[in-house]
Order: sequence, then structure tokens, then C-alpha cells
Amino acid sequence: MTVLALAGGVGGAKLANGLASVLPEGDLVIAVNTGDDFVHMGLHISPDIDSVTYALAGMNDSVRGWGVKDESWAFMEATRHLGGEGWFNLGDRDLATHVLRTQLLTKAPLSAVTADIAARLGIRQAIVPMSDDPVRSMILTDDGEMAFQDYFVRHQCAPRFRSIRFAGAETARPSAALVAAFEDPALEAILICPSNPILSIDPILSVPGIRQRIVDRRVPCVALSPFIAGQAVKGPAAKIMTELGLPTTADTIARHYEGLIDGLVIDEADVPGWTGEGPTIHGADILMRNVDQQQALAHAILAFAANLRS
Amino acid sequence: MTVLALAGGVGGAKLANGLASVLPEGDLVIAVNTGDDFVHMGLHISPDIDSVTYALAGMNDSVRGWGVKDESWAFMEATRHLGGEGWFNLGDRDLATHVLRTQLLTKAPLSAVTADIAARLGIRQAIVPMSDDPVRSMILTDDGEMAFQDYFVRHQCAPRFRSIRFAGAETARPSAALVAAFEDPALEAILICPSNPILSIDPILSVPGIRQRIVDRRVPCVALSPFIAGQAVKGPAAKIMTELGLPTTADTIARHYEGLIDGLVIDEADVPGWTGEGPTIHGADILMRNVDQQQALAHAILAFAANLRS
Repeated sequence: MTVLALAGGVGGAKLANGLASVLPEGDLVIAVNTGDDFVHMGLHISPDIDSVTYALAGMNDSVRGWGVKDESWAFMEATRHLGGEGWFNLGDRDLATHVLRTQLLTKAPLSAVTADIAARLGIRQAIVPMSDDPVRSMILTDDGEMAFQDYFVRHQCAPRFRSIRFAGAETARPSAALVAAFEDPALEAILICPSNPILSIDPILSVPGIRQRIVDRRVPCVALSPFIAGQAVKGPAAKIMTELGLPTTADTIARHYEGLIDGLVIDEADVPGWTGEGPTIHGADILMRNVDQQQALAHAILAFAANLRS
Repeated sequence: MTVLALAGGVGGAKLANGLASVLPEGDLVIAVNTGDDFVHMGLHISPDIDSVTYALAGMNDSVRGWGVKDESWAFMEATRHLGGEGWFNLGDRDLATHVLRTQLLTKAPLSAVTADIAARLGIRQAIVPMSDDPVRSMILTDDGEMAFQDYFVRHQCAPRFRSIRFAGAETARPSAALVAAFEDPALEAILICPSNPILSIDPILSVPGIRQRIVDRRVPCVALSPFIAGQAVKGPAAKIMTELGLPTTADTIARHYEGLIDGLVIDEADVPGWTGEGPTIHGADILMRNVDQQQALAHAILAFAANLRS
């Protein structure tokens, strides 16, 4: 069987890690948002690919929530001493990935480079960028439009969110590995990780052909809510939904993915309050505090998807 | 007055630092070898410019002899973990310089970038590359020809040295700041630092126009011997001279710089054995163990050059 998971950064990486540890090697394809990618200080940075890669390699910093564990910051100190760009933190170990990626990208597309780096770290699952073509998330705020990392890191998501557009998406093509996963006869489920629906999943859906392939799915598609009791587990999802006038509930997620999902996994605590229509609901403990809980949730989702299939 | 010093890496950086601390700000131009420059992991590395820059900024590691003090190596560890190129050590702090330089070079020539970085570090002296055009030292050895860093770092200077050529030198132009220093009416002395004559000074002299400007000098040119009692203070100068069948003495240095120098500073211990002809000899303690001795030697050289002038 093959499971295809669409993932953004931290929440996506956690579930991807759970799935990787319960599925046989080779049975998991993780399609990752690259709308956050940018070139910074001449280095090609792919934050969500790195979050997934570091999680699957067991290198991620689970306390800080991003980057590499046992990280140090001498490069940033020296960069600030030089009057360089100090607003985006690049750890000394993390930097090795960016330098290697930037170098490899001079000779190969992002999907090949991503697979190469994953293999160097001993990862046996397929981590595939949504596209090899540049698609860049641009955030329209009350302070004007800004590139994703300007909004997310430099401005700490403080400006009021109005809308997002995906520059380059019109002409982008889904990566070949992602298309192959959709067309794989062994595909048994599509999962949408509990990443930010607007910032992390919508960029993936913006690449022509991806949304339609999910609409036309032959297998169940299950999403995980990123909300628990009206709060986002991490990140600005609740703030953005509120700024859009939307309740921070599972129902908003169900509406957001209307036509795309058959099932929605929500927190057990939210099941009694569920009033939405559409997908079949499954309650679970969706707060992944550690690897055991990542595995337990992965098992629960896969069983839920199997039920929807039968 | 203006003093123009030609410098390679570590020995050049030490004397440059001594000169910088005894000359008024603005009176010193240090023309630096860029034949060792190379692009490594996509980063433009200028080892000799960095040695001079770090020394003048007080950032150099005087124990290791190269790079930045208080350095850490997490980037290299992570690079090796990724199976990346591990043979050339890039410290975490040092890396900030390479990343910034590589980025700035997309918009400006090396001489402007070098001046920019020096200014960011509070340096008031002019550090000028010998040329803005790429000149690359290629070492012919008994194991074939290799790029400078392959010979110097990867092979630790082990292969027998036969000859050196300077790829790109034919069409290179001296940097504008170096030409201006030669033409400066306030120029009072030209100094050749105790860097490796073949590996570090000859690349500078290979740039069309530089050697001739020294031949045509209106002011004294003084070199410092890199040898003390038949040994090089640091690096492979003695090994290379021996492989060329040349004695590792001040006389060899005098012959090497024949027609270019009026004076040669040699170690006091070597004065009694001096049998050479040509330049006026001045004996001094030329082993610069610390900043005080760098200053003392700088004073001695400047006084010697002033004597030659009068």
C-alpha cells in the first residue's frame, strides 16, 4: 500500500514522523509545501522540507519546534557582528543543509536534491516537494503584501492577514514523484496533515493538477484538524482564521477542505461540540506531545482511513 | 605618507597588523594575494584576504594560525554527517564572512566587497586584492597539476613541488586601489611581507603591470625574509625551496626578488652568515611571536626603508 500525506512544517513533520514509524519503508510519500522557500543570503532555504527531513532523521529540535537539535548559533553571532541579515535564524548545523542544497541545486531539480539529502540522512520514506518550479506564498496584510518569511519571521505574523497568493503557481507543475504517488495503483489513502490550511496546505493545492487529483480521488482523503478547543496547537492558524472572521473550529477546517476530504480527525474534546456537515468525523487525542503519540495518532488515522475505504 | 605592503596569508597578516598599529590610519595599503581564492561549496573563499582582515580586526586565532578566534565547528560536523565536502575546514564564525562575501560579490567586484567587509569590522586601513579578476595559482607537482587548495590543504603540500602557474593572470588587471597606491605621490615605501615568495608573493607579481611598477619604483622596496636559520617560520616555503634545489637562506630570497628590492630584512642570527649580493641587509628579530613584536618589527622596517630613502 501507499499513503500520500500532504504536509507543511512542524505539525506536518510530527504526523509524517508518526506515519513513517508505523508504515513499512517505501509505503509513505510526503508531499511538502515549498511556498515558504526562499533564497536568503544566497542560500536556498526550504523550511518545510527541512522540518519533515529533520523529523524523519531524528535530528529535529522538539523543544524549539524547528531546526536541528543540539544547535549552536556562532554563524548568526558572526553575521550580526558583520552587520549582515540577522532577522532569520540559521543554526550552524542547519546551515550545512542549506549550503549543500544550494550547491546541489546548481545541477539538479529540488525533488532530486531533496531525495539526495534525505538518503544521506538515512531516510527511507519519499519526501517530495509539491513542485520543482518556484511557487512563492505572498501574504497580503493591512501593512501591504509581503513575502512569506517577511510575514512569518520578520514580522512574526503581527500584521493583520487579508489573503494569500501563490506567485508562480499558474505555470508550476506538480513534481513527478507526487504525480506518480497519485497514480500509484497501491495508493490507499491521502492524508492532509494538521498543518496550517491557508499557509501550508493551500500552496500545495495551488499547483495546477493537485487539487483536481484530490477531487478525483479513488481512495479516501482524511484531514487532521490543527485546532483543539478553539486554539491552534502551534503557529498563527487561529490568529489568521479570526482575522478572516472564521471560527477556530473543526467545522471551519471541514468547510475549507470541502470536496477534498471524506474524513476529518478532530480532537476528542471537540467531538461533542461538532455541528458541521460533510466529512465523517473521528475523535482522537490529536496533540502529539512525543513520538509515542505521533505513532498512536498515525495508527488511528490509518485505521480510520481504512474504515472509510471499506 | 603611504606605505604599500604586499602580503600573503599568515606571515603577511602579522606584519600588516604591526604596520597598521604603528602607522597613522589611512597611511597603509595592503595588497593581498588572491591566487589562493576558490569557490568551495558554492562560497567564494579568499583565504589571504581573510587572514589579513581578521588580524587587523583583532579576530584572528593566533594559536591555530588561521581563521577566527573562539571558533566552533558545528557546520563542519553537520556537513560531514551529510556526506558533504569535509577536507576544507570552515569554522562557524568564519563562514559568516564567506556567505556575506559570496552574496556581496553578486553585485560588486572583490575590491569593493573586501573594503566593505573591512569597514564593517572597523578596519581603517586599505586591504586591496591584487586584482578583481580571477587569478588562480595552479601547482605542478610530481603527482600532476592541482589547484592551490588541493595542494595546500587536501594534500598538505606533500607532493613534490615542481612549478606554479597563475591561471588567468595574462588578462588580469591590477585592482584600481593598488594602481592608485603605486601612483600616490605620498608613497614612501613598498614592503614585501615575509610570506611565501613562490606561493603568496609571486601570484601578486604575476598580474600584468605590478612587477613592472615595482621595477620602476621611485621609493625603496624592502622585503622580509621568511627564513630564520634555514627554516621557514611557518608553512611549506623551506620544503618547496629544497624541492627546487635552492638553499633555504636569505640569499635565495634576495635572488628571488632581484631587481625588485633595495633592502632585505633578515633575522639577526642570519646576519653573520650573509654572503649574498644585491640588497642592503638589515638584521632584526623577525619572529613575530606577539603583537608587541609585530609592532617592533614594523618600526624597524619603516626606519630601515626611511634610511634607504635618504
